[in-house]
Amino acid sequence: MDIAARRLADPDHWSLASAIRVLSMDAVEAAQSGHPGMPMGMADVATVLFGRHLTFDAAAPNWFDRDRFVLSAGHGSMLIYALLHLTGYEQMTLDQIRNFRQLGAITAGHPEYGHVEGVETTTGPLGQGLANAVGMAIAEEAMRAEFGPGLCDHHTWVIAGDGCLMEGLSHEAIALAGHQQLGRLIVLWDNNDITIDGRVSLSDRTDQRARFAAAGWRVLSCDGHDAADIDRALTEAARDEGRPVLVDCKTIIGFGAPGKADSSKAHGSPLGADEIAAARAAFGWSHAPFVLPDEVLAAWRAIGRRGAPPRAAWNDRVDDLSDADRREFARRIGSDPHPRLDALIDAFKTQTLESAPKVATRKASENVLEVLNAEMPENFGGSADLTGSNNTRTGGQGVFSPENRAGRYLHYGIREHGMAAAMNGIWLHGGFRPYGGTFLTFTDYARGAMRLSALMGLPVVHVMTHDSIGLGEDGPTHQPVEHLALCRATPNTLVLRPCDQIETAEAWQIALSQDATPSVLALSRQNLPLLRQEAGENLSAKGAYVLREASGDAPRVILMATGSEVEIAVAAREALEAQGIATRVVSVPSMELFRDQPQDYRAAVLPRGPVRIAIEAAIRQPWDWLLLGERGSEDRAAFIGMDGFGASGPAPELYEAFGITAAAVADRAASLL
Amino acid sequence: MDIAARRLADPDHWSLASAIRVLSMDAVEAAQSGHPGMPMGMADVATVLFGRHLTFDAAAPNWFDRDRFVLSAGHGSMLIYALLHLTGYEQMTLDQIRNFRQLGAITAGHPEYGHVEGVETTTGPLGQGLANAVGMAIAEEAMRAEFGPGLCDHHTWVIAGDGCLMEGLSHEAIALAGHQQLGRLIVLWDNNDITIDGRVSLSDRTDQRARFAAAGWRVLSCDGHDAADIDRALTEAARDEGRPVLVDCKTIIGFGAPGKADSSKAHGSPLGADEIAAARAAFGWSHAPFVLPDEVLAAWRAIGRRGAPPRAAWNDRVDDLSDADRREFARRIGSDPHPRLDALIDAFKTQTLESAPKVATRKASENVLEVLNAEMPENFGGSADLTGSNNTRTGGQGVFSPENRAGRYLHYGIREHGMAAAMNGIWLHGGFRPYGGTFLTFTDYARGAMRLSALMGLPVVHVMTHDSIGLGEDGPTHQPVEHLALCRATPNTLVLRPCDQIETAEAWQIALSQDATPSVLALSRQNLPLLRQEAGENLSAKGAYVLREASGDAPRVILMATGSEVEIAVAAREALEAQGIATRVVSVPSMELFRDQPQDYRAAVLPRGPVRIAIEAAIRQPWDWLLLGERGSEDRAAFIGMDGFGASGPAPELYEAFGITAAAVADRAASLL
Repeated sequence: MDIAARRLADPDHWSLASAIRVLSMDAVEAAQSGHPGMPMGMADVATVLFGRHLTFDAAAPNWFDRDRFVLSAGHGSMLIYALLHLTGYEQMTLDQIRNFRQLGAITAGHPEYGHVEGVETTTGPLGQGLANAVGMAIAEEAMRAEFGPGLCDHHTWVIAGDGCLMEGLSHEAIALAGHQQLGRLIVLWDNNDITIDGRVSLSDRTDQRARFAAAGWRVLSCDGHDAADIDRALTEAARDEGRPVLVDCKTIIGFGAPGKADSSKAHGSPLGADEIAAARAAFGWSHAPFVLPDEVLAAWRAIGRRGAPPRAAWNDRVDDLSDADRREFARRIGSDPHPRLDALIDAFKTQTLESAPKVATRKASENVLEVLNAEMPENFGGSADLTGSNNTRTGGQGVFSPENRAGRYLHYGIREHGMAAAMNGIWLHGGFRPYGGTFLTFTDYARGAMRLSALMGLPVVHVMTHDSIGLGEDGPTHQPVEHLALCRATPNTLVLRPCDQIETAEAWQIALSQDATPSVLALSRQNLPLLRQEAGENLSAKGAYVLREASGDAPRVILMATGSEVEIAVAAREALEAQGIATRVVSVPSMELFRDQPQDYRAAVLPRGPVRIAIEAAIRQPWDWLLLGERGSEDRAAFIGMDGFGASGPAPELYEAFGITAAAVADRAASLL
Repeated sequence: MDIAARRLADPDHWSLASAIRVLSMDAVEAAQSGHPGMPMGMADVATVLFGRHLTFDAAAPNWFDRDRFVLSAGHGSMLIYALLHLTGYEQMTLDQIRNFRQLGAITAGHPEYGHVEGVETTTGPLGQGLANAVGMAIAEEAMRAEFGPGLCDHHTWVIAGDGCLMEGLSHEAIALAGHQQLGRLIVLWDNNDITIDGRVSLSDRTDQRARFAAAGWRVLSCDGHDAADIDRALTEAARDEGRPVLVDCKTIIGFGAPGKADSSKAHGSPLGADEIAAARAAFGWSHAPFVLPDEVLAAWRAIGRRGAPPRAAWNDRVDDLSDADRREFARRIGSDPHPRLDALIDAFKTQTLESAPKVATRKASENVLEVLNAEMPENFGGSADLTGSNNTRTGGQGVFSPENRAGRYLHYGIREHGMAAAMNGIWLHGGFRPYGGTFLTFTDYARGAMRLSALMGLPVVHVMTHDSIGLGEDGPTHQPVEHLALCRATPNTLVLRPCDQIETAEAWQIALSQDATPSVLALSRQNLPLLRQEAGENLSAKGAYVLREASGDAPRVILMATGSEVEIAVAAREALEAQGIATRVVSVPSMELFRDQPQDYRAAVLPRGPVRIAIEAAIRQPWDWLLLGERGSEDRAAFIGMDGFGASGPAPELYEAFGITAAAVADRAASLL
């Protein structure tokens, strides 16, 4: 059917969809930057989705029981901006649309969570939105199981393009979703057959429908430009039959632009005045840029109010809860820290001081979690198939599965990236604090999603064990060397590397108290003695603190270390003190937190003058500011750590071979004095 | 069929396979560390593969036309170590097996390329070997097309486990392989139904056979403990029908260990003396640990010589080549740099000095490649669907495809990780120097493979464009901020960030001259003026050098910068010089290369005394050593760059908004004097 025939066949739908198309091409043209093709291609699907299926209330963007809508193909940002404006989200004014992609506008190049209401997650890096949506759908199932369908009963809708489906992350996401039988997760595939380089056939011949079916999905399809057919498919898709649903929406990129539709020319640049004029004519749209006819806007605004009655009914159900239940539900969906967190940690630390366990910090982490998870239903744990190594599962945690939605532990499978992205989605949905484990080295696999935790400000907890050559025989492929530097280099990321069970408890307290920053807990494989001699204040929260004071008036040497190397620093201090060299040990569980301390505290911990040695079984890059800066001095500073990859062998031999020993530290200190 | 019946049915095969099993469990037991279950489960398949199908000659591990064997499930390293010893690879002595996982032994925890002959690639991080193998198979097709089947005519065999197949990377790899119709790539899936956490059903219900078929693969299956059935499947698999082949090998992990087989208990720890004794009994193996009966060893050694005749015939064909052809073939498979590289770069630089183009360095890179690719058939380019943005394709390059194996440009699709891993495989195969492009931010997606480029010492070239907030409107999801720090933090990685077309040419000269180090070229989206005023020596090879000297005797200020910020430094110098402040500009295209210079050169470029300011639109972490160290001083140093994520907007406005301007630099310098 050609465009004119389609227009005449369904004029009401057509005018709604045209509004999206015209706003999109005009905004991109005004910005002279952006992606018009995708919004134009998916305008019909989006119109039917928002118009007849998506449960939302534009007046209350954060209503908990709304359907979630994720634009995984984030470059098509004008699609969602147009929808938000048309349906009446207050923030999304026409001026914002006019200022698309301009500095300070909420209409950023790619949709950014927290930057604009109605955007459920930051997308653009392909595949992430799809994988976030899997987390959202998991959280929906879990909340529904816990609080009942009266309070949680919604769908998660995703628009994904070929780019999303080519990314490896998509495999992890769809396999996880298929395994978990997430029947309310619906992916609308913008099957337009075009990528940036040209036709999809240039790089792919995957039968996506068969692929999703192989992962346990239900597969539907529709003509993505036929409103009735779209409606049929979406109606069918919304029925929860215990399997996630792929809807193959056959579309034409840049639909309506006569010279550029169905080609990569429509993808990522302005269409140009002539093409836009021709498209306008094809749409039968005579209005100037950014002018919307009243009746079209009114029809869209009515759509934006569709969710008001169900929201009111939901509010009534919340009001009907007992006070205690309502408070707890509000706390959970508000993501407030647990009121007993501090008390539980304090008691645990006191007990630890008495028992003085010598345990790996990964085991210490498990010990903390045993206490916390027993009281905190929001803790939603998991591991990328290293449960027994990451020590992430605690005794009372049931396993989340299709048979047990009350489980609070998820076997993510060998899917580090999918896990990290799902954790982002679980947090974004609300109701849970997700944490998940793998080896620190395999942050390499998860970085795409971990960066988005940081960019979005989601306080998920990455439990990264086997955090150095201390893992031993598995060798350099499994031994992180640069990864602490990588995590510390990432903005808005808390890296916590505790040295014993007390610092581990403090690290968890810090991580579970965050509201806008993800944490990376770097934990040892090998056993470590209890080094802390007091259990009161959370000293880790200062980032760095004096763990062992030098004898006498003032230190001549300051040894800084983190995690498993603090033990080495303490031993080196003893050797130096035995030689009459007053030596202070500073434990540095978090550089980021130390950087945030007042200057006078920092100067008190690291006074000018003494020789400084930093000890960490990793590369030096993040340490220069504490060794050479903050009034350190190049000729009175040294680093004891790694300057290349590790090796396979027993851990104690590796520490010897790489010269990370108390004797080496003491020798170096003496030589610098 | 139970074990005893299997043993009696095929005693010759059984004794060969038992040798692998016993060596594996004994070596793990001796090390008290390692993974016995996988080698025991796959011993039958490996015995048939090596015994009857794999073309190799143990006396010549690096014979070019050997079949490639990749143990993607690298934790099963004892499988390959046992095979190498049994077939007679000289390095792999029984002592090495006894010293499995010990420091200094070649029998590292995971197989390491370069550490031991016969290991084609470093594996352990799951999915990587599979994706490397795709690159090897691509290179085989390309070399066969170029030099003919007389010189290149072999298969690539992979053993992959469930872990490999769950990783997202596997999706990118198998889709690429299916698209490219790599008919000589055969993946043997160790379908043992076990992961570390337990049964596969705990985390996955993917129909892997259907999934591979959806990606365009041929799918076969066999009983992985029945030699005849394995032989049938492998025979069928080895027929090149223009599609890669998955062989679903149904196996039992820890096969033969009565108490631990078919459970995760067999996966990653020693079986223990009792279990080993019981397994020995089941195998009918009465020999002490590390004792191999003569007849078994002789049979295996004969297998190791199977490839001698075809190798001799291949040598004869090489000898029959003309001198010129033989030299070029030897150069190619020896991966020697092109003899004209230096001359081509020198001429290009001279010409650039005359034309003084103002171009983005991504465009400059294309300009260099136009010249190089015309003469260097080994350059094998590609992009993860950003060809027009990365500027990676040059005019004469045909597109590599099933229809055109002579093409030297590959549309990798939206598969950054798969591309980087395939590039590793292309290099490992021999014959080509692969380079591939994406945005610098998306190193996040490719890090798993990029780390292995570095660990293995493979001089592939990662062409990373859009290297800062200078990309503008796409916003913070696409703007790298921490990625230069990440790449610089990675051992054995050259990071090159050129400031103009001359430095870009020098960067390519450096990258294409490497023999054991990968390069990351960080290139701008935005246009940059030609700043270099001389075209002679490759100054970038020094890592940092004086680009603009201060007037008068000595500089009072030194401005250091890289890439697009060098222009800002030059402008700031002019402002400072106009105020009478003698200012030197140091361009720092590569910190790693500068670190390798003699101390007196470094001190001449960065003398003690002057105020130092570093300018880079990225985070500060890597700069502290040049600002505060190398005799810099905290109170006379400043950094002008980023300390958080970017924003969406036009690039010039972003530079203003984040304060990365010549005026800000000049002000800061003046305030420090």
